[in-house]
Amino acid sequence: MSKTNTTRSVNKTAHPFNRASLEALLNRRFFYAPAFEIYGGIAGLYDYGPPGSSLQANIIAEWRRHFIIQEHMLELDTTILTPSPVFETSGHVARFADWMVKDTKIGEVLRADHLVEGVLEARLKGDKEARGALQEASAVNDKDKKKKKTVKSTAVKLDDAVIAEYENVLAQIDNYTGPELGQLLRKYNITNPTTGNEVDEPVQFNLMFDSSIGPTGKQKGYLRPETAQGHFLNFSRLLDFNNNKLPFASAQIGRSFRNEISPRAGLIRVREFTMAEIEHYVDPLDKSHERFDEAKDIKLRFLPRDVQSRGKTDLIEMSVGEAVEKKIVDNQTLGYFLARVYLYLSRIGIDPARLRFRQHMENEMAHYASDCWDAEIFTSYGWIECVGCADRSAYDLTVHAKKTGAPLVARVALPEPVITEREVATFDKKILGKTFQKDGEALRVHVTELPNDELEIIKDALKTNGSYPVTLPDGRQFSLTSELVTIERRQLKQSIREFTPNVIEPSFGIGRILYALLEHSYWAREQDIQRGVLSLPAVVAPTKVLVVPLSANEKLAPAVAEISSKLRKAGVFSRVDDSTASIGKRYSRNDELGTPYGITIDFATVSNGTVTLRERDTTDQLIGKIDEVTAVVTELVEGSLDWEGACQRLPAYDGVQAID
Amino acid sequence: MSKTNTTRSVNKTAHPFNRASLEALLNRRFFYAPAFEIYGGIAGLYDYGPPGSSLQANIIAEWRRHFIIQEHMLELDTTILTPSPVFETSGHVARFADWMVKDTKIGEVLRADHLVEGVLEARLKGDKEARGALQEASAVNDKDKKKKKTVKSTAVKLDDAVIAEYENVLAQIDNYTGPELGQLLRKYNITNPTTGNEVDEPVQFNLMFDSSIGPTGKQKGYLRPETAQGHFLNFSRLLDFNNNKLPFASAQIGRSFRNEISPRAGLIRVREFTMAEIEHYVDPLDKSHERFDEAKDIKLRFLPRDVQSRGKTDLIEMSVGEAVEKKIVDNQTLGYFLARVYLYLSRIGIDPARLRFRQHMENEMAHYASDCWDAEIFTSYGWIECVGCADRSAYDLTVHAKKTGAPLVARVALPEPVITEREVATFDKKILGKTFQKDGEALRVHVTELPNDELEIIKDALKTNGSYPVTLPDGRQFSLTSELVTIERRQLKQSIREFTPNVIEPSFGIGRILYALLEHSYWAREQDIQRGVLSLPAVVAPTKVLVVPLSANEKLAPAVAEISSKLRKAGVFSRVDDSTASIGKRYSRNDELGTPYGITIDFATVSNGTVTLRERDTTDQLIGKIDEVTAVVTELVEGSLDWEGACQRLPAYDGVQAID
Repeated sequence: MSKTNTTRSVNKTAHPFNRASLEALLNRRFFYAPAFEIYGGIAGLYDYGPPGSSLQANIIAEWRRHFIIQEHMLELDTTILTPSPVFETSGHVARFADWMVKDTKIGEVLRADHLVEGVLEARLKGDKEARGALQEASAVNDKDKKKKKTVKSTAVKLDDAVIAEYENVLAQIDNYTGPELGQLLRKYNITNPTTGNEVDEPVQFNLMFDSSIGPTGKQKGYLRPETAQGHFLNFSRLLDFNNNKLPFASAQIGRSFRNEISPRAGLIRVREFTMAEIEHYVDPLDKSHERFDEAKDIKLRFLPRDVQSRGKTDLIEMSVGEAVEKKIVDNQTLGYFLARVYLYLSRIGIDPARLRFRQHMENEMAHYASDCWDAEIFTSYGWIECVGCADRSAYDLTVHAKKTGAPLVARVALPEPVITEREVATFDKKILGKTFQKDGEALRVHVTELPNDELEIIKDALKTNGSYPVTLPDGRQFSLTSELVTIERRQLKQSIREFTPNVIEPSFGIGRILYALLEHSYWAREQDIQRGVLSLPAVVAPTKVLVVPLSANEKLAPAVAEISSKLRKAGVFSRVDDSTASIGKRYSRNDELGTPYGITIDFATVSNGTVTLRERDTTDQLIGKIDEVTAVVTELVEGSLDWEGACQRLPAYDGVQAID
Repeated sequence: MSKTNTTRSVNKTAHPFNRASLEALLNRRFFYAPAFEIYGGIAGLYDYGPPGSSLQANIIAEWRRHFIIQEHMLELDTTILTPSPVFETSGHVARFADWMVKDTKIGEVLRADHLVEGVLEARLKGDKEARGALQEASAVNDKDKKKKKTVKSTAVKLDDAVIAEYENVLAQIDNYTGPELGQLLRKYNITNPTTGNEVDEPVQFNLMFDSSIGPTGKQKGYLRPETAQGHFLNFSRLLDFNNNKLPFASAQIGRSFRNEISPRAGLIRVREFTMAEIEHYVDPLDKSHERFDEAKDIKLRFLPRDVQSRGKTDLIEMSVGEAVEKKIVDNQTLGYFLARVYLYLSRIGIDPARLRFRQHMENEMAHYASDCWDAEIFTSYGWIECVGCADRSAYDLTVHAKKTGAPLVARVALPEPVITEREVATFDKKILGKTFQKDGEALRVHVTELPNDELEIIKDALKTNGSYPVTLPDGRQFSLTSELVTIERRQLKQSIREFTPNVIEPSFGIGRILYALLEHSYWAREQDIQRGVLSLPAVVAPTKVLVVPLSANEKLAPAVAEISSKLRKAGVFSRVDDSTASIGKRYSRNDELGTPYGITIDFATVSNGTVTLRERDTTDQLIGKIDEVTAVVTELVEGSLDWEGACQRLPAYDGVQAID
């Protein structure tokens, strides 16, 4: 969190973090709530209310500024509805699935890996209880906490060998196939923990929502599970827009959908969510980045693959430059984006001490990825993947080009033409037709496409023997003769290199980031645990300044209007709270909404034109003339002044105790 | 369009508008393009490329500023996926449908009303051809032009009676039911114009895309066809957020979906689109608006219902205040929003001369609406509905409350408690039970709920006769006696009024507005029809300033960096075009993208620090020091200075002919 230097120290950790309190606040103040609540709700669907929508809009606006505008990315807005052939080609129809099992009696559907994991963990916990040694679960598996279905444990002691076996299974839980999960379910007698009923064999469940496009019912479509395919399909248009120059990036902010088998953990695992995705297209032979120097000294906390494969989670803190140099991070472009992600998340208020970059294990990566680093943020649900930075290599462009015939390639002029020499076979077409009739063309194509070394062998044989036997892949046999074919060494000149770009993809889950930010921002006043505060940075806070008239007395109205108007002209979003609640109550309510500054108008405003300026976290108040205070608060909101600076510009207000 | 006063007059109408040229420009510069183009495309789905995405983002940002921020609306972001019961209640499952027919041989699906309309119009046109009197279709029906499927006409003369009959059918084409359309198809021997095949009976086709939520396949869902239901379901939370005060408005910008039978006309009729919707909740007894004074003098061009019912399309220009006073527009709130819509559309660049407000006919309104005015914009497709302003009355809140039991109501304290007197029936429950056993309760409920006048009759009868016969709606008969029931006049005090708010809904189709804006902005240079220009106002232009170094000479680089940095700090979005194309070519390319200003850096910049500032429409250029020019262009972009003002601040550059 970008801390303001304050004149009064604030203890934000007086009370331990309490998720239930935060959730109560978020629900009460309508940051978000279950969608269709009055209809009983639908798991995994949430609506954002006014403060949540504003916070989300501000997170997105800052994302657009930080990435699209500063990096001159090409923005896209492509459709959510996608015809089936696109996802058949991308592999999603076949592979974007989880394994599920059904309770054989009541038909309840469970995710197979979650079921095995939940039951074995409960048994291990029961064993610890039986041994009288129950402690909090270790932090090693914390990244998976979010996935766990809570299964009640029973105190039953297990054999040491069984414990080792369970732990081994749990360590690999992400790697099992459906049939293997089925074997585990049977081997360990795992039933539905809620009912005790058996479950049937795991079946694949595709996570894409499907629908039908148009009135005929014959055109199957899906709701996109990511925005990425919309970028790739437009690659040629984007390259053209960019004057055929590489590298460049496209960016898109939009809704995606995944039909999760068991949504859980609030905003963390939902069925409809807003993503922000970047697809950065690079020459596979040159993954350097022209602005890498600006990023190379930024220090990040890495959790590389080899550390994890030793069963450890120790973080390595080093500069991006060093990480790229040591090949921990594969290339400059990937490193540059990791640094930019770090800067972005820190700027909107994510605590850098609760942010790490974890490399995917080989078997954990999406089917298209050649390398992947997740920005993970620590929350009360454990470490949560909030940004995935994958090197998708040339996978997507290659498969779509192959399927459609569209040339999804880039061409660069070679600095010098490349001259190569090789053997070239030339047939006498007249003799070819006369000798082999229709079969001749197949022979000709086969021979002209042979590798250079084979052509050299044939050339020698023809020179020596005058003939050479050739067998086509389909078994047809021919005899080549010197009359039929001439093989000569020729020079070939190549001045253009054509290639399929590689794609490096930073992909942001906006809802997860928003939730993590709310956790990192939340605390309660030391003197009153009920007084929750969201210390959102001004850049994302829904309202920047609260304008508070002391009372409803109409003499205060002109100053309220004047301040509101001046703030509006300065581009600072303010709200007036002229309700009849006490000033203290009104500030408390706005501390809950994360409003960083407050301007109080009282009768001193009428008599001598002064107002007070309150800072949310410290509750410190300063006093000044209206123009001074609006100027200071504008600079505070824009980030060109911090609170300590403000305290040097304006005197402290000593009536603070009276009204707060 | 917000015109800048220029020192040189520009003839924007030298060439007649040519849609094909505009579409070629939009496609070439990737404003938007058919989605899944490399897969052959899907009708009614479009992707926005970089300039289109930027333009859309700017249109939305200005909408958010103009409506949400300036009017202190409560923003929402609700889910697209919606469970079926919500749309069953709202009436969409039953009624959000069009009638379609199938070609009996090839299975092609056509919209029934479009088919009848297209064929009859073609026959009327053929008649005119046969009579040698073909003229352009009159403008009366121009609002429907967008719907027409073009049917080729054949010169066949019709009887005068047939002509009258056809014209009568066409005038009512929006009013027929499916079976009636079926009768028309048979009566007039209408076949599929493309194949000549017969079509079968019209069947209803629901325009919502459906899907299944969750893994069981049992939970049916739809993609929302409007964002409105998401507002209504959250009404109680919103009211609470607004401290239980009315009126207030919620606002949402988001994607909606309609499975159109036959998408057409580019962005006008698509299957996936971005909407911006406002739901303004008012007390049905008081539809005044506190800021109406700010709107009342704004003049709009109205097309009221009664003018249309006389078969006319003459527009009535009058102030909003007068329209409300004369009850042409029903109430202040509706009038206020019409004026705000006008201001918004004008500000982003819609030509006010091509904007009208048309009232819906009674039979044309959505099933929930009690009144509706569309902001229609004239384009080459005719008058297009771009903003609908409907009074949805209490319909939605009432049906959802009834279905779910959630009290979607507002309560206001009455200024004075209302004291009413009425007869009240009180039963002796002991005697009631003894006399009628189980039937007694039905009798009691029936009698206590009788209207006051009936109770007075019973009271008199009991006084006179001691008994009174009562028949329940189900036919059961009872005799009331003075022992059983006492009827007395009592005073009732009511201090709270509880009511279901009415909802006034301005609903914006962002894609339609964007397309209309592109048409209104497009023209070609008088001297060269190939040089298309988009005169987008700076507030929505994708790029505000183009920074153009004269050549790639590295001496120019520092000035390019300095200007870019200064513009960035001033919050002005600029792009550098340092390609090798000529300056003139680079400006032409950016005229096509609607970039309003350009700053040229040449060797004079290096020697004496001057740059030139070019205005897109006039191609006028001014000259000044870097700081002067960046200051002037910042004010131009912010709208606090116009081009004439800029011309007074900076001298004209007379080298203009040399480089443009």
